[in-house]
Amino acid sequence: MTAEFIVESLDACLEKFIPSDAQELKEITKILYGKSLQKIEISKAENIACTNNFELKGYKFVALTEQLRKPRIVRVGLIQNSIVLPTSAPIEEQRNALHARIGTIIESAASLGVNIICLQEAWTMPFAFCTREKFPWSEFAESAEDGPTTSFVQKLAARCNMVIISPILERDESHGEVLWNTAVVVSNSGKVLGKHRKNHIPRVGDFNESTYYSEGNTGHPVFETYFGRIAINICYGRHHPQNWMMFGVNGAEIVFNPCATVGDLSEPLWYIEARNAAIANSYFTCAINRVGTEIFPNAFTSGDGKPEHRDFGYFYGSSYVAAPDGSRTPGLSRVRDGLLVAELDLNLCRQIKDYWGFQMTQRLDLYAKSLMDAVKPDYKSPIIKE
Amino acid sequence: MTAEFIVESLDACLEKFIPSDAQELKEITKILYGKSLQKIEISKAENIACTNNFELKGYKFVALTEQLRKPRIVRVGLIQNSIVLPTSAPIEEQRNALHARIGTIIESAASLGVNIICLQEAWTMPFAFCTREKFPWSEFAESAEDGPTTSFVQKLAARCNMVIISPILERDESHGEVLWNTAVVVSNSGKVLGKHRKNHIPRVGDFNESTYYSEGNTGHPVFETYFGRIAINICYGRHHPQNWMMFGVNGAEIVFNPCATVGDLSEPLWYIEARNAAIANSYFTCAINRVGTEIFPNAFTSGDGKPEHRDFGYFYGSSYVAAPDGSRTPGLSRVRDGLLVAELDLNLCRQIKDYWGFQMTQRLDLYAKSLMDAVKPDYKSPIIKE
Repeated sequence: MTAEFIVESLDACLEKFIPSDAQELKEITKILYGKSLQKIEISKAENIACTNNFELKGYKFVALTEQLRKPRIVRVGLIQNSIVLPTSAPIEEQRNALHARIGTIIESAASLGVNIICLQEAWTMPFAFCTREKFPWSEFAESAEDGPTTSFVQKLAARCNMVIISPILERDESHGEVLWNTAVVVSNSGKVLGKHRKNHIPRVGDFNESTYYSEGNTGHPVFETYFGRIAINICYGRHHPQNWMMFGVNGAEIVFNPCATVGDLSEPLWYIEARNAAIANSYFTCAINRVGTEIFPNAFTSGDGKPEHRDFGYFYGSSYVAAPDGSRTPGLSRVRDGLLVAELDLNLCRQIKDYWGFQMTQRLDLYAKSLMDAVKPDYKSPIIKE
Repeated sequence: MTAEFIVESLDACLEKFIPSDAQELKEITKILYGKSLQKIEISKAENIACTNNFELKGYKFVALTEQLRKPRIVRVGLIQNSIVLPTSAPIEEQRNALHARIGTIIESAASLGVNIICLQEAWTMPFAFCTREKFPWSEFAESAEDGPTTSFVQKLAARCNMVIISPILERDESHGEVLWNTAVVVSNSGKVLGKHRKNHIPRVGDFNESTYYSEGNTGHPVFETYFGRIAINICYGRHHPQNWMMFGVNGAEIVFNPCATVGDLSEPLWYIEARNAAIANSYFTCAINRVGTEIFPNAFTSGDGKPEHRDFGYFYGSSYVAAPDGSRTPGLSRVRDGLLVAELDLNLCRQIKDYWGFQMTQRLDLYAKSLMDAVKPDYKSPIIKE
């Protein structure tokens, strides 16, 4: 019996099969990636990446030169990773091992001049919501304001002069000790700038998240950092164009999308949704997904008639950045930890708004009124019959 | 000097370069197409297609077998075509030539059992809005209810027992004789079921459409035909997720997206937007784009500093169908006229709603309220600063 064959990435396959001198290459690149992006110099961190066994890639998005505004260059970092210790290890050891691993990758991002970095969803823990067990997994929850992970991130952020988005399982001590799926935004000064709670919660496949926490109550905040206006659309919120929209309406220039999702469920959607959001809202999107297969102590079923098992498939990574003009970077690996660095000129957002005019032609007043009507329990759709 | 090299289609390239026995093929197919679709038997019409020089392709989307509902199988047809006569020919001759050409293709679709067919945007004319000339192009406009094209389509629809979506330039005699960009829906009985006017109008590149007509005033109607509930999102409306959304909220199971768009402007967005809409709204989408290069009598400029010219590039075709589960057909050619037939089981829409739960988790009440606030002139975004 041979082991399952796993493709490293779509991009690596295309590179393998399509000769670099094929006359079709230019148009294939245009159709699949929008355009060919320049790579950025990453040699400074290549040794650390090699020693610590994570992939490192870097690309650059450019904008037109303007007369009245200087380029607004920002470097973003996306980190995807597998868990470090087995899920059966003590909670604190699991968390500390992840802190150490991510600390190393963030330091290497700092050496490449990254200004804003985003970690994957619930990065301090295995994605244990497949088990439907409340214990011990709820012990991973911690305060967004002063839990051990936020304290750890604050020190890193100040030392690296970097905004860090830290998606965790939050314990809300002030409101009945309930759990939330929350992204904490730590400023480059080391202060907690604020937090955003996941707006849309899945009940699909092994993503039994509504068993643990409810739909977020923090709306669609935009964080004005030293490096640009950012927002966070957590995981399943990427399937909801209205969620993406409101971050755009509120002024975001970069929307990070930290995720945890597996191949059989969502991979064909992966390269579509965050990229569509970048196009529709004239901002940059950064989609991040974890990697690896997580094996749990107790077997569970998946609501699909199949026998019990102790894992629910592999997280396929493939983190990427998409731009307002519809172009995108290749993805990180489907199987390896990785750091993707992208240099953005935020001036591109307004340039594309002026060019395509999606905001001017958006007719939000029409949709505000249409939705107000549509949500009434006695709403009748305009159905035209013969 | 060699002629410009034009790629026939992305799909043909991948087929050319990736060996059919490559072990990567299965995963590449999953990532790019969702899954491999079964082809349907089209030999009955292959002779007509060959004789009349149009491409013919057919694919099948399947759904689970249910206990309480029978499969709801419908065959849709998408037609993409170039204009037939030069743009300098008399208006009536240009229109009649297109009627004849499309009549032939529709008859061949009928022989394959197509139930609902959609033609490309403004199919009776060249896409002359690049010229900004009002004459003679406005003469292509006609009544949606009883113009020569609607009469032509009605006869075909009744004879072929087919619902036909006929996107035309409409002259609204009852309201100041203004123009609209309108899709007329003709029932399989031959009656005009109704019409929908383009909701979002571009002002980008050579698409000077706001010079000719305004944003549609027909909302988001859904047409309940004998074969299923359908809606039409015309061209530039595909860039607006809220437009797609309202057709879904109103109950559409198939949304047709007749377009006219050129390569340098929008091709990287083409495979993203209609497919994203199918995913987000759990319905089928059918994206249709014309082909060919249209040369106009008078030279015009394109607002990009380049010299005057008499065409604005080639329309890249690539019509395709996307399903609620995120899968899609390969595209038709980027350069040839074509007919794409797809067999759909409409039961898939509700099955995917039940599985993914996007409608249940959509929080439309949140967005209704958010948009009502956001459209106020004195709206202040929730910006969080240090």
